[in-house]
Amino acid sequence: MLVKRNLREGSVPPLQMEGTKDVSMRIMVGRADGAPNFSLRQFAVASGGFTPRHSHNYEHEVVVTGGSGTVEYDGADHPVREGDILLVKPNVVHQFRADRGDELHFLCLVPVSFDCGKTTPGS
Amino acid sequence: MLVKRNLREGSVPPLQMEGTKDVSMRIMVGRADGAPNFSLRQFAVASGGFTPRHSHNYEHEVVVTGGSGTVEYDGADHPVREGDILLVKPNVVHQFRADRGDELHFLCLVPVSFDCGKTTPGS
Repeated sequence: MLVKRNLREGSVPPLQMEGTKDVSMRIMVGRADGAPNFSLRQFAVASGGFTPRHSHNYEHEVVVTGGSGTVEYDGADHPVREGDILLVKPNVVHQFRADRGDELHFLCLVPVSFDCGKTTPGS
Repeated sequence: MLVKRNLREGSVPPLQMEGTKDVSMRIMVGRADGAPNFSLRQFAVASGGFTPRHSHNYEHEVVVTGGSGTVEYDGADHPVREGDILLVKPNVVHQFRADRGDELHFLCLVPVSFDCGKTTPGS
């Protein structure tokens, strides 16, 4: 059975997580699907919203699918827009902000586990 | 230093691989960037083209970014279009075809290694 879902169908629920503002998130492919190594999550940040400013011991790969905003990475701000692909390396402080009068839509991938077998949150 | 590249910038070179027709591919984030666990590749298939019909001992996660086509998966054909997210599980025969009078654009992710440390081709 092929796992096939569309980003435009269904709803993306609000993310309840400290340090976020106006962020929605859903797992498009993850551990529950039997994904062996990495999990693909869809994020939407309303204009003025932001993800947590944090770091963790695993990476992100990010695909900006719509809108625009800013990523803070290792103390510097970078504009992001549709089509941008990013690698957020482990242990680097980062935050995504929809601070350009626009929504920000992106996919964010994480490994399903880190540190020799710990379950990655939100995978 | 943030790794940040855009899908719309630069060129995507032809993929020289047996069993393909009119496929271009480039690695957007991969082993050369220090990606710890998985690699993100951009594919473009011209109308009438196809990727190899094959299977391998690692998974794909796929994001259809434009156009339309067909994925054959485990002996069945499924239409694909912009916004579709797929999980292609290990050891399942699959092929992507631009067979609907349109180009097919997608991102295809692979783990950077499989079978306890073998380097994944094209990662």
